[in-house]
Amino acid sequence: MTPRTAEAAQVEEANQAFYDAVETSDLDALEEIVLTGPLAETVSVVHPGWPVLRGRGEVMRSYALIMANTEYIQFFLTDVEVAVDGDTALVTCTENILTGGPAEEDGSAGTLVGALVVATNVFRRTPEGWRLWVHHGSPVLADGDDDDEDAAGPGA
Amino acid sequence: MTPRTAEAAQVEEANQAFYDAVETSDLDALEEIVLTGPLAETVSVVHPGWPVLRGRGEVMRSYALIMANTEYIQFFLTDVEVAVDGDTALVTCTENILTGGPAEEDGSAGTLVGALVVATNVFRRTPEGWRLWVHHGSPVLADGDDDDEDAAGPGA
Repeated sequence: MTPRTAEAAQVEEANQAFYDAVETSDLDALEEIVLTGPLAETVSVVHPGWPVLRGRGEVMRSYALIMANTEYIQFFLTDVEVAVDGDTALVTCTENILTGGPAEEDGSAGTLVGALVVATNVFRRTPEGWRLWVHHGSPVLADGDDDDEDAAGPGA
Repeated sequence: MTPRTAEAAQVEEANQAFYDAVETSDLDALEEIVLTGPLAETVSVVHPGWPVLRGRGEVMRSYALIMANTEYIQFFLTDVEVAVDGDTALVTCTENILTGGPAEEDGSAGTLVGALVVATNVFRRTPEGWRLWVHHGSPVLADGDDDDEDAAGPGA
């Protein structure tokens, strides 16, 4: 394993730990993953369909809210791509999400809904390991094939 | 002006130049703004509603396609926030977009449509200035107020 590959593997582990924390509603684990220190006020997160949340405090509050309102969520990550340059690492991935509402009155599981979200995650290297600086998730509304010209919505 | 502020101003200029290039359908200007070199294959862009595009070639082709299919587009940027750390800079902003279809048969302008998109842009420092490494734009579907709990869609 080259040093570069080992580094990318560490970043991918940090990325997986981030999703594991959300999946298991483990706010303490998430606290460890989200960047602290001088850049804490610049931590930024966009949940699918949301405006930008900026600053570690606002970001953590949003996750507490999401966790409190999500009965069940599971992430199957695909298309995970990692790039490392110096102390910055970029991860892009597809979040294949299975989420469920509250259990039915008879005790059976609530309705499961699938969702397709793509994410851009940026990590910073710290003495304690790679920490999440930026997360931007957005719904995939088109398949983005080259010949699917109508899919080109507004935006840069 | 402190060095840090001057740096942030340079990043904001690069960010504005990116939107100006799309607004004026200037693919050559965009070629100058998008990162080249060793990280070129890791350049990643998400257009609103699209999957991830990765690699400079694929990214530039998508912009050529968007420019060819966009009669008119204007960006009013608000909430522009810049953070610089070493050779990496993070910009988040709201793209208040005004876009228009083809002109009517009588020569009058096509219908204008407004759209609200939030963007996360990451720039890298190069000898030629700050260059775009990552762009992720996504539609804002909820106002994200703290008390707007129903807005919490699935996703990390």
